[in-house]
Amino acid sequence: MKAARLYKYDEHIGSKSLELEEVAEPEVTGPFDVVVRIGGAGLCRTDLHIIEGQWAPLVGIQLPYTPGHENAGWVHEVGSAVSNVEVGDAVIVHPLITCGLCRACRAGDDMHCVNAVFPGIDSNGGFAELLKTSARSVIKLPAGVEPEDVAAHADAGLTAYHAVKKASPTLYPGARAVVIGAGGLGHIGIQSLKALTPAEIIVVDRSEEALDSARKLGADQTVKADGRHVDTVLEMTDGAGAEAVIDFVGEGGATADGFAMTRRAGSHYVIGYGENINVPTIEMISTERSFVGNLVGTYNDLAELMTLQAQGKVTLQTHSYPLGAINDAVADLNNGRIPGGRGILIPEGAVA
Amino acid sequence: MKAARLYKYDEHIGSKSLELEEVAEPEVTGPFDVVVRIGGAGLCRTDLHIIEGQWAPLVGIQLPYTPGHENAGWVHEVGSAVSNVEVGDAVIVHPLITCGLCRACRAGDDMHCVNAVFPGIDSNGGFAELLKTSARSVIKLPAGVEPEDVAAHADAGLTAYHAVKKASPTLYPGARAVVIGAGGLGHIGIQSLKALTPAEIIVVDRSEEALDSARKLGADQTVKADGRHVDTVLEMTDGAGAEAVIDFVGEGGATADGFAMTRRAGSHYVIGYGENINVPTIEMISTERSFVGNLVGTYNDLAELMTLQAQGKVTLQTHSYPLGAINDAVADLNNGRIPGGRGILIPEGAVA
Amino acid sequence: MKAARLYKYDEHIGSKSLELEEVAEPEVTGPFDVVVRIGGAGLCRTDLHIIEGQWAPLVGIQLPYTPGHENAGWVHEVGSAVSNVEVGDAVIVHPLITCGLCRACRAGDDMHCVNAVFPGIDSNGGFAELLKTSARSVIKLPAGVEPEDVAAHADAGLTAYHAVKKASPTLYPGARAVVIGAGGLGHIGIQSLKALTPAEIIVVDRSEEALDSARKLGADQTVKADGRHVDTVLEMTDGAGAEAVIDFVGEGGATADGFAMTRRAGSHYVIGYGENINVPTIEMISTERSFVGNLVGTYNDLAELMTLQAQGKVTLQTHSYPLGAINDAVADLNNGRIPGGRGILIPEGAVA
Amino acid sequence: MKAARLYKYDEHIGSKSLELEEVAEPEVTGPFDVVVRIGGAGLCRTDLHIIEGQWAPLVGIQLPYTPGHENAGWVHEVGSAVSNVEVGDAVIVHPLITCGLCRACRAGDDMHCVNAVFPGIDSNGGFAELLKTSARSVIKLPAGVEPEDVAAHADAGLTAYHAVKKASPTLYPGARAVVIGAGGLGHIGIQSLKALTPAEIIVVDRSEEALDSARKLGADQTVKADGRHVDTVLEMTDGAGAEAVIDFVGEGGATADGFAMTRRAGSHYVIGYGENINVPTIEMISTERSFVGNLVGTYNDLAELMTLQAQGKVTLQTHSYPLGAINDAVADLNNGRIPGGRGILIPEGAVA
Repeated sequence: MKAARLYKYDEHIGSKSLELEEVAEPEVTGPFDVVVRIGGAGLCRTDLHIIEGQWAPLVGIQLPYTPGHENAGWVHEVGSAVSNVEVGDAVIVHPLITCGLCRACRAGDDMHCVNAVFPGIDSNGGFAELLKTSARSVIKLPAGVEPEDVAAHADAGLTAYHAVKKASPTLYPGARAVVIGAGGLGHIGIQSLKALTPAEIIVVDRSEEALDSARKLGADQTVKADGRHVDTVLEMTDGAGAEAVIDFVGEGGATADGFAMTRRAGSHYVIGYGENINVPTIEMISTERSFVGNLVGTYNDLAELMTLQAQGKVTLQTHSYPLGAINDAVADLNNGRIPGGRGILIPEGAVA
Repeated sequence: MKAARLYKYDEHIGSKSLELEEVAEPEVTGPFDVVVRIGGAGLCRTDLHIIEGQWAPLVGIQLPYTPGHENAGWVHEVGSAVSNVEVGDAVIVHPLITCGLCRACRAGDDMHCVNAVFPGIDSNGGFAELLKTSARSVIKLPAGVEPEDVAAHADAGLTAYHAVKKASPTLYPGARAVVIGAGGLGHIGIQSLKALTPAEIIVVDRSEEALDSARKLGADQTVKADGRHVDTVLEMTDGAGAEAVIDFVGEGGATADGFAMTRRAGSHYVIGYGENINVPTIEMISTERSFVGNLVGTYNDLAELMTLQAQGKVTLQTHSYPLGAINDAVADLNNGRIPGGRGILIPEGAVA
Repeated sequence: MKAARLYKYDEHIGSKSLELEEVAEPEVTGPFDVVVRIGGAGLCRTDLHIIEGQWAPLVGIQLPYTPGHENAGWVHEVGSAVSNVEVGDAVIVHPLITCGLCRACRAGDDMHCVNAVFPGIDSNGGFAELLKTSARSVIKLPAGVEPEDVAAHADAGLTAYHAVKKASPTLYPGARAVVIGAGGLGHIGIQSLKALTPAEIIVVDRSEEALDSARKLGADQTVKADGRHVDTVLEMTDGAGAEAVIDFVGEGGATADGFAMTRRAGSHYVIGYGENINVPTIEMISTERSFVGNLVGTYNDLAELMTLQAQGKVTLQTHSYPLGAINDAVADLNNGRIPGGRGILIPEGAVA
Repeated sequence: MKAARLYKYDEHIGSKSLELEEVAEPEVTGPFDVVVRIGGAGLCRTDLHIIEGQWAPLVGIQLPYTPGHENAGWVHEVGSAVSNVEVGDAVIVHPLITCGLCRACRAGDDMHCVNAVFPGIDSNGGFAELLKTSARSVIKLPAGVEPEDVAAHADAGLTAYHAVKKASPTLYPGARAVVIGAGGLGHIGIQSLKALTPAEIIVVDRSEEALDSARKLGADQTVKADGRHVDTVLEMTDGAGAEAVIDFVGEGGATADGFAMTRRAGSHYVIGYGENINVPTIEMISTERSFVGNLVGTYNDLAELMTLQAQGKVTLQTHSYPLGAINDAVADLNNGRIPGGRGILIPEGAVA
């Protein structure tokens, strides 16, 4: 089969980051294995960081390998004990392969499985015609939902939804949620807030275009990140700040800004990353504010997000490329030329 | 009445920090006012910081005034609308005077009252024979519990109990709670963990004496903070860290140490303060760990703590001084000469 | 002032149930008292039950007195210690006068205050020009919200909202909520479900007109209560039943029907009342289903409902009568002639 | 192997209810199968009901079959994909075989698996030398814990623990938990309450002997069920009742008694079964009380209970019989001759 493989890390992303080549097809070897024919694979900034080599010290995978961690498609082959999907089913793929037996798995906290594998990060992923995953990772798509349309939910959407779901118990009618960053994750966060909570949604971004889009997706108020934005949000919230600040940026000062916009007893949800949190403990204890880390989401979270997609309550902004054009897609993403910041790679001839 | 008053800030605490003098007695002026005859007033490190002037920029109180924010005693006089206590009742005093009408008060979150007053911090406190507070702040003591024995619960104990109560839903049988600091707050934290949860309690402190005391109060394991303590705690927790790290120190590296001892999906509870939290966001999101701020506690929290005291499940380690010896007490505290780190000032002749 | 007074119980409601007469105006006597000039007072089936004498054995009030337990208006006079409202403010009145000092009040559970008074039920209510209540019971209306338009929220709306809020943590995207009864409370329940949760809403009622109205307010599916309705709901829910059944009827078999429509691990929320729950315990334990009692709601619940009203997410269906026509209103209600089943009594000349 | 088989239902349990005979050994056929060599199998009242035929209409199993639903032992053989246990490991067996793939399984709610099998109830159980179960059902025993000592936890203990865990968030210091029935399940419930909560524990039973035992296990107060017991409990709770009533009896009036002992806003937890709940809805709504159904517990619940057992916080009262004497055990249980009401069947020669 065709696969786009990374042969060497490249700090300065050029025109040919990945090699498109023929590789052996993955095969079912264990009773719970599932091989998925890719219908769409999301390309995001994490892939740029992988190509640049930033993840190398963390995951120690041998090159060459196939990235691609946001996958959807159709079931191609199943192991002997797989009972939840059949060949031909359209599925989205939870990003982790989990053991199902550790305490975290037994509590539904898939992302804390102590034996997890993360295809596309620490093993071969979905920039290819076929992907090997597990019965525990595949979710049948509701009728009318196409793999290409939801692939980016597999990680980006799931992460945004999971963070919003954690914040939702504090978001009563009259409460405010600030969303920092209305890009790839943020626009799903806004729609998830709209679907799950009655909160007033305030969106902060540097781009007028992103703010326009945010308003269409349900933002109640938008604020240009122009240096005065912390004060503006405080004015909008009676000087008190928001019950929840959901930070999809995590760099360029977003962490300090977000904490400054957080109300007493409120939480700053960390999703975007890059900079350090650097806050005096006295400011946390004198106001009882918290920083809450967030990491993808559970299998059931992803199934719920598919329901919202099927109900039309959440839609994705993506731009498609044939798998063969992956290096163009990488270059476009790296140069800020993909609207919405999310490309979808589609193997030639991918159909149900 | 006699009161110990602060006339000027003094960065270098000397032998006469406060002036003991005669001042006018506080009087009931509003329908919900309660004047309490002090039976015991706690002296803690916050009082040293007040004398040193560290709180001056935060609360802008005019000198001279009377510190003392951990108070218990007997009801001396009540306003016309007070129905929950009568003259003569033994009471502990919640540290905040709250409005009872804002959203936070109506949700039971007393410490987030938008109209709160904090006697001893931003108005006259309990280093005196009488203290003016409110019906909403007084809790009748259970039979057999004496004001002198519980005064330090009014802030220190309440803070420790509240943080433990927040952590308790994550502390199932087999989970671990690390307590950093077995001093004034920590020893109440240990007892509260024992009373509220089935968790294994691991206590970290620099002092062997404090660790001895911790074992007597219920610590399952103790760890000397000797530079290897993070590794030791990780070894005790199968390399994974603890579900909850409850940090009563917040300086000298405790924040970084505590975060390093926190398990995936776990939380570091910030109670002690002083240094900054300074952590890469990628470490929070890749493990879904959180930093949770904590601030005193609710009125009901304090009532629950009085129940634990009456049941003998929690006891305080304090050292008493007559109010007239307050400057000795301040000097002893400043020089580390009060065992347990908590003095109790008792006005001469204080009896029920 | 004018007031509509009940002089004697009457099992057979006739044409003159209440006497309209001049009575002394209520006056502020305590520091927290608030007298409200009525802008609208809701009339509901509970008032019929009061007139019929069904509540007499429960509350022991002396006749004559003034019913009316769903009240909104403008602040007319305040006690010396009232700080949250001023004369002239438009307000809705929480149905209970609470003490603010018991454990339930201190936890925000206003409806479980151990010292509560219930004007209109156990003391004089709002079928009059003025009502005496407390600072703890009045909520300022958002700009643009008129007392007449929200009076019925004070009990009916609050009760429906509170039950929905309790159910909401179980209502994820894809979950189903069944609403039994789309009348006075039910139509607010449907709108509250829509505002607070992503659940699919299935509404069951005997009246096609009520089901039409339910669809306009947000019901995803409607089911005529025609004897086959339990089977129909089970078919709609893959044979499994709904995660939450919210029963606003509680008589005529609704309790058994609702339990039969409840999924394993789900709950039947009891709001309407009349019949007995009569269920074999083996059916509860073999499926882990629960029956959850519900009672009005908290002060903060009512404030949140006012926010939803101001945002246009909740509207009330009511029919207005001048206070002088109260006996017509009672007769109309008793004969099923008020659309939506909720009358609003407006004193002549009531203006801000 | 030897197995005790049921050939025909017998309403009047006699001296030979089960046939001890040689049957084929169960074998691993699927990748996740686990065959356990029985070290102990609990015998309880449910087994009497099975023999009497009460479960026949519910589960439709073909006779003859082998009962025994509370099992512990050592791993005898494992399927190709089993990674969590090895041959020889001492294990307790969760009573359900679950699919691991449905929404309930993926949320950790094992007892609501839509594909569950219940060995001993709807397939062959553990009154035999070997039992076939699944990797998802076996929990390794902590060092020092023997199968024979914990077998009765597999259903009885798990059920009691799970109900207590559900009640525990409402059980603050000063709250009261009433336990109805201090027998097989009740004595584990009392110990679980002691381990998980600071509540005052009030135990109600008809037997002085059971109450004696309850006091030794941690009951703070005991009440003889003598007809006055509801009043006695109300007197002990200031006339208000308990926050949680945990009913392990469910017949002979326990349901009505328990509800009458439940405080406003409190819950009656239904575990024992037999009679109907029969309560006017007005009593539920006027006090906001609930009836909460309970059903065994999760895999993680059972693992937690094993931790409590290993820590010595929970112990079981059982009486052992050789498997060959199973009909004696059945007769003893049926005639109330097993102290603690729980027999353990041990195959001859069962050792690690």
